[in-house]
Amino acid sequence: MTILLYDLVGRDTTRPFSPHCWKVAMALAHKGLAISTAPTRFLEVPAVESGVSKTVPVIRDGETVVADSFAIALYLDEAYPDRPTLFGGEGGKAMARFIERWSQLTIHPYVTTAAIIDLHAMQDEENAAYFRRSREQRLGKKLEDVVTARDAGLATFRAALEPLRSMLGYQPYIGGASPLFADYIVFGALQWARIATPYQLLDDSDVVAQWFARCLDLHGGLGRKAAAAA
Amino acid sequence: MTILLYDLVGRDTTRPFSPHCWKVAMALAHKGLAISTAPTRFLEVPAVESGVSKTVPVIRDGETVVADSFAIALYLDEAYPDRPTLFGGEGGKAMARFIERWSQLTIHPYVTTAAIIDLHAMQDEENAAYFRRSREQRLGKKLEDVVTARDAGLATFRAALEPLRSMLGYQPYIGGASPLFADYIVFGALQWARIATPYQLLDDSDVVAQWFARCLDLHGGLGRKAAAAA
Repeated sequence: MTILLYDLVGRDTTRPFSPHCWKVAMALAHKGLAISTAPTRFLEVPAVESGVSKTVPVIRDGETVVADSFAIALYLDEAYPDRPTLFGGEGGKAMARFIERWSQLTIHPYVTTAAIIDLHAMQDEENAAYFRRSREQRLGKKLEDVVTARDAGLATFRAALEPLRSMLGYQPYIGGASPLFADYIVFGALQWARIATPYQLLDDSDVVAQWFARCLDLHGGLGRKAAAAA
Repeated sequence: MTILLYDLVGRDTTRPFSPHCWKVAMALAHKGLAISTAPTRFLEVPAVESGVSKTVPVIRDGETVVADSFAIALYLDEAYPDRPTLFGGEGGKAMARFIERWSQLTIHPYVTTAAIIDLHAMQDEENAAYFRRSREQRLGKKLEDVVTARDAGLATFRAALEPLRSMLGYQPYIGGASPLFADYIVFGALQWARIATPYQLLDDSDVVAQWFARCLDLHGGLGRKAAAAA
């Protein structure tokens, strides 16, 4: 049976960009589950599965509908225990939450700063207007005034990745010898940036960039199926 | 059989202060293992177990000697698999390394800034001289010039704990419903500060402070057996 993923897109439906949807796409591939996607624009989210969630990802697996990327990963591990684990045990489940919070608070704000104009440009007219209105309200400034902090913030952003960089001196993945959902959490954030903006967040020589490249290669190069922004 | 822990102390041997030794003391209590401690001053470390390590903690368990707090925790879980796990599976082992790197890079530098004069004052004359010499060389400035950044850095330090603070909205411990070694990693850093300095790093109303208080209560209040600095 195929699992349906409601996946956030802009004008180009072949380049889904949501960090949270990417977490789930990678998790589904990790479990080896067949997938079909329903390309979903911002303004279509409230109608997904009769309004089950204010955000995507949402999945439908037969009669079961699950929203929220972390909840989906927990569901997949519970529903498909015979397939490769996404957490590597109860400790991994708990600590993946810490990594999610770290990624959300450390990486997401800077990706927003760096890519917000590009993300706006990816939307069709109606969705672009929604994106501008909702983001300007949330951030308290015009999109054009958000991106001005990009160059000045780059060094601080790269320095903030130091825990991940240091960890990669011990092991190739956050999950250890091989990737787990915790890797897909951080991957999702950087993939969001890769797809939205040509702005270079990481130096190529950075071990974090090398880890990200390894993640792009996973599951038949799934992450590379959406081209980087150019 | 009793496990021997070489535990870093200053003049007062009842107030061991090393963050890394506290990680191990908590891990041994978590496993329910009997322990004896060998109070060890900085200048005595090179002679511990015939110079096995440049740092403590070091443990001796019968014929086995292990150095490095993370390696000790891994050893304890492997040697005593029937006792409560410190990692909660392979995923937890891998992600605990991320949390160790985060703690080391986010919490330790500020505790050093905040407590370095107090740590110096805890040592006897000979060890104080060693501490001053080695730390001033490492930090590139006089101890008295390190601590001047304390007040100005406090808000940034507290903000840097936001991933932990946010995670505590989901679960009471980094390990989930109950503590794992990852909790003891972060606990060790804050216990180091608690024992060394009366300077208040956390606001009492902070959920991180409340989590730390829960950790102090664990294992018969082990962490409270060393009085806070006054």
